[in-house]
Amino acid sequence: MTENHTTQTVISAFNWVPDFARGNVRDLPVRWALEEIGRSYEVHLLDAKAPRGPDYVAWQPFDQVPALRDGEIEVFEAAAILLHLGEQDERLMPADPARRAKVTSWLFASINSVEPPVRNVSMMPLFYGEADWCAGAVDSLTPLAEKRLQRLSDALGEQDWIVGEFSIADIMLVFLLKTVGGETVTKFANLVDYVERGKARPAYARALQAQLDDFSEKVEL
Amino acid sequence: MTENHTTQTVISAFNWVPDFARGNVRDLPVRWALEEIGRSYEVHLLDAKAPRGPDYVAWQPFDQVPALRDGEIEVFEAAAILLHLGEQDERLMPADPARRAKVTSWLFASINSVEPPVRNVSMMPLFYGEADWCAGAVDSLTPLAEKRLQRLSDALGEQDWIVGEFSIADIMLVFLLKTVGGETVTKFANLVDYVERGKARPAYARALQAQLDDFSEKVEL
Repeated sequence: MTENHTTQTVISAFNWVPDFARGNVRDLPVRWALEEIGRSYEVHLLDAKAPRGPDYVAWQPFDQVPALRDGEIEVFEAAAILLHLGEQDERLMPADPARRAKVTSWLFASINSVEPPVRNVSMMPLFYGEADWCAGAVDSLTPLAEKRLQRLSDALGEQDWIVGEFSIADIMLVFLLKTVGGETVTKFANLVDYVERGKARPAYARALQAQLDDFSEKVEL
Repeated sequence: MTENHTTQTVISAFNWVPDFARGNVRDLPVRWALEEIGRSYEVHLLDAKAPRGPDYVAWQPFDQVPALRDGEIEVFEAAAILLHLGEQDERLMPADPARRAKVTSWLFASINSVEPPVRNVSMMPLFYGEADWCAGAVDSLTPLAEKRLQRLSDALGEQDWIVGEFSIADIMLVFLLKTVGGETVTKFANLVDYVERGKARPAYARALQAQLDDFSEKVEL
């Protein structure tokens, strides 16, 4: 894969996160897309333990990662960055308008129809497991998470990738299923295989290693 | 505003929803965008009380509304449809790449960084208000919702619209704040004004009336 992008590409990432979050921070899907197209990038490493200043908040208004700078263009939100990269390379998103519309539909669906209900069920025990309301909430909210994953499972069917050919929609879906899917995903065999298929891509492995390498060993836990 | 779009535009909507959902269904932002550019559209009305078949699920995999058909192109997810329309008209999204990137970043942020935490707090009492876990969950989850709205409020500041000029990002943000914002939004005066500013646009009023007009009076409650 040849590098023919001429402007400098910079992404933001944290220099430290707790162990459970390593490999799960949202700069991973962005690094993965960049690796898929062989584009080199620089990392603007943020000190996870110090407040970021107004310059960073002007770039990423929620003071999170990732944000991307591509020459004069600034983008935040992982899925928005994937769209930006997808528009520059057909290996990430087809140019044909009808196929492209399927990819963008699934990209938005991944972070709105799939992620929030699934995240509620998987993340509440992690962050609020000791609260007396947690078990009841998870019980009540699980059917919606399962319903959404059932729809995703039905749409994927026996395909390798959600719109047939690999795209940024798969990058976001696989990342989210892996990161916030929890036990609910294990009920859907084709989704489990889908995640493994995504993680088996060499670009995924390079992206994961790059995220892990950027965590400083020297920061106190 | 002139109609110069040559292919037929069709959106899906329900023929009935419960009273609390009237004016809050997600075809509203799509109708609003279409009204902003004066584009006529047809409505594919779904029977809310009957199961939809595989044809509809092939168009909208989560069996929800809205979906859009624009000639040969099919799109689902309200925000994906807004992006599709925005790419066709600069009144909805600037063509300049740097300004366009700000709009897409906020469009994705609206449904991922803003909506899910705010929706948790506002919708749990509506759907699970009788559950013994509900009040505790809302108490625990409110700080995150407030934090995200504080960031949005800071980013909006004294501007009329989130990226300076009106765009699809405002359509989605105003719709979401109005629909799932609940009490949390009322703590941020500039967000309250922002919602009122959006609702005061003639295109919003036409879109709202069109959604309400499509609900059948004849369906039993």
